Amino acid sequence: MESTQGIVLQAQAAKAASVKLGILTTQIKNDALRAMAEALCARKQYILQQNKTDMETARQSGMKEAMLDRLMLTEERIEGMAAGLLKVADLPDPIGEVLNGKQLLNGLQMTKVRVPLGVIAIIYEARPNVTADAIGLCLKAGNAVVLKGGSEALQSNKAIVGVMKEAAENAGIAADAIQFIESTDRRTVQDLIKLNAYIDVVIPRGGAGLINMIVQNSTVPVIETGIGVCHTFIDESAELLMAEAIAFNAKVSRPAVCNAMETLLVHAKIAERFLPQMLEKFLAAGVSIYGCATTQKLDARVAAATEEDWQSEYGDLRLAIKVVNNIDEALIHIAQYGTHHSEAIVTSSYTNANRFQQEVDAAVVYVNASTRFTDGYEFGFGAEIGISTQKLHARGPMALAELTSTKYLVKGEGQIR
Amino acid sequence: MESTQGIVLQAQAAKAASVKLGILTTQIKNDALRAMAEALCARKQYILQQNKTDMETARQSGMKEAMLDRLMLTEERIEGMAAGLLKVADLPDPIGEVLNGKQLLNGLQMTKVRVPLGVIAIIYEARPNVTADAIGLCLKAGNAVVLKGGSEALQSNKAIVGVMKEAAENAGIAADAIQFIESTDRRTVQDLIKLNAYIDVVIPRGGAGLINMIVQNSTVPVIETGIGVCHTFIDESAELLMAEAIAFNAKVSRPAVCNAMETLLVHAKIAERFLPQMLEKFLAAGVSIYGCATTQKLDARVAAATEEDWQSEYGDLRLAIKVVNNIDEALIHIAQYGTHHSEAIVTSSYTNANRFQQEVDAAVVYVNASTRFTDGYEFGFGAEIGISTQKLHARGPMALAELTSTKYLVKGEGQIR
Repeated sequence: MESTQGIVLQAQAAKAASVKLGILTTQIKNDALRAMAEALCARKQYILQQNKTDMETARQSGMKEAMLDRLMLTEERIEGMAAGLLKVADLPDPIGEVLNGKQLLNGLQMTKVRVPLGVIAIIYEARPNVTADAIGLCLKAGNAVVLKGGSEALQSNKAIVGVMKEAAENAGIAADAIQFIESTDRRTVQDLIKLNAYIDVVIPRGGAGLINMIVQNSTVPVIETGIGVCHTFIDESAELLMAEAIAFNAKVSRPAVCNAMETLLVHAKIAERFLPQMLEKFLAAGVSIYGCATTQKLDARVAAATEEDWQSEYGDLRLAIKVVNNIDEALIHIAQYGTHHSEAIVTSSYTNANRFQQEVDAAVVYVNASTRFTDGYEFGFGAEIGISTQKLHARGPMALAELTSTKYLVKGEGQIR
Repeated sequence: MESTQGIVLQAQAAKAASVKLGILTTQIKNDALRAMAEALCARKQYILQQNKTDMETARQSGMKEAMLDRLMLTEERIEGMAAGLLKVADLPDPIGEVLNGKQLLNGLQMTKVRVPLGVIAIIYEARPNVTADAIGLCLKAGNAVVLKGGSEALQSNKAIVGVMKEAAENAGIAADAIQFIESTDRRTVQDLIKLNAYIDVVIPRGGAGLINMIVQNSTVPVIETGIGVCHTFIDESAELLMAEAIAFNAKVSRPAVCNAMETLLVHAKIAERFLPQMLEKFLAAGVSIYGCATTQKLDARVAAATEEDWQSEYGDLRLAIKVVNNIDEALIHIAQYGTHHSEAIVTSSYTNANRFQQEVDAAVVYVNASTRFTDGYEFGFGAEIGISTQKLHARGPMALAELTSTKYLVKGEGQIR
């Protein structure tokens, strides 16, 4: 109960601070962001030292190399976090933006304005850079933030939050606007996602397990992010060299991220012309292939794909390949196994390009381009807190505007109904 | 289990139908809406007869007059439902609207377009007119709809859905796009709000009990609607006649609706000048007053307000009144007891008007006007499916645009990252 009560107090404090935060000037918020960036650089050695503690514990507990790399901070990575904060400071302030307005028949003046969401809880796994990004974005959009990071990164996150909070406070931000939950008790998250009175939205960032647990248990509204079983469909009329370049890029350029391709779908009519060379290229790059029976016939090194392969977000150099008889079969496969993140078709057919974009139910649907472009920076938003894969509130890369709500202001001279 | 399985099949069928619905032309959707309106009028006698069965059952079970009135259909009310559908047919189609777009640095063409949410579940209580409204609005925005109405209105709702579904099908709409759940088992709702694979959003319409139950138990995203503990604050500098007219209108014009005032807050400096005449007017209109100690001193007919009164959405001719020492106390009271619906200040102070609009956390914040204007029709939206009191996705009166999501379409010529 101790831990639950502590969390309630933290959430309450965040709510109280959010009221003040929502009416701060852009200037104060930007000054705070710049001060936080400066503080991160000035206290680099302290943060690296705390990160070393986390790294040692993680190594002793047998954490894998890929995960250790996510957890590790370097001077460069801390400078990257600071640079991100400066970039957010330079973005336009979404708060106070007038979205629309009009005069009603009875003379009432109605204005719809952008306001903060209030208190945002971010629940995330290993990467400590999420800590700095989330604080920066939430603060710029006028929100208080409650952070619950992975236990492996506890000392690193505590250090980052401590440094940023001190700088923010000196720049005029209420210290309570940034809450970091230290408890590593798993019940903590369960308690946090039920505090509807104090928390306005929960954004989970991590693997499918974390996200599903939060969707299943949260009574606070959730924005689902980042599970990406992304497909690329090579249509009958595709330019084969373009198709090869796109598919290779979608799988190999950064296999661990959510916009990477997990399954390649190939039209049966071009499979024999397209796949042998494509497979050669993938295998040479170290990709392990799990294919349907037709794909297996083309190359002995292709393992048999199981139902599980079609469902997997591998996150590494594994790839599932399926030959389909037509675009309909491709659309059905994507509808069944896709996670509404990013889907691509490579085609020269005007009709199929349009049909694919219209019928595929995903945040971003590409024609003749790699799914790897689904990203707030690539889309020119200047920032990103995650990729929403749900339909409510925000869909696709989320930047500052997606961390806001709206409010109607109505001015009258005594109107009654 | 029988009932659960039936619901899963209905939700599945709705999901499959939603794909076709999302790409229908505006013309077909409008024709279907007009055909449904015509069918409602043509089958009026049948619907009235089914409604009579519900009314008799309700009377026998001792339903109160106010509730019986909500349940009752008349020729006029059915014509009103039909007129509502024609109005929705005349509104612009939100689907396919291009919200924005640009060319990225690498030449990718990005377009953000409006798409349907998919499948919307509407869970509602007594009024059968919600059935027709919900079908019309969901269909126009390209969504399939799963309806779960109150058991008291079962025969009426079945008749309305049957008539509308037949008309829609003849006009080219997949019959599965409209699903009506007949089971009156309470477990049905519990099962429905956990079908994340098939249902994209749940919108509850009804009392606080229903809405809280759904927020607490749904794993599908929810849009909370319509709980309104609305306040009017009469500031020290208010024009007293304007204040009297606004407060009277906000309480008395239609006390059962969610935008009606439940608590009147009065600045202490004007309480003795303002309240006696205001109380007289309320009491003459049959309003029962529950007041703070100061209010009680002004009139012997004022009962003592308890903590429960400040929390109550009376929905009838009861009113709570509290005298506060300044705008700060008013803001604190509203922050504590308000439900983020509609709040008003009556003032002549530029500073207090601005401060109230900025600091009150509600969907609609009024200066010198009645809270009764919070309504899709009054706001000029031409329709309304409810008033959202949450911050995610939609806030305030929800019309067609609020029943949609978005999608990014990206066209390339072989771009890779």
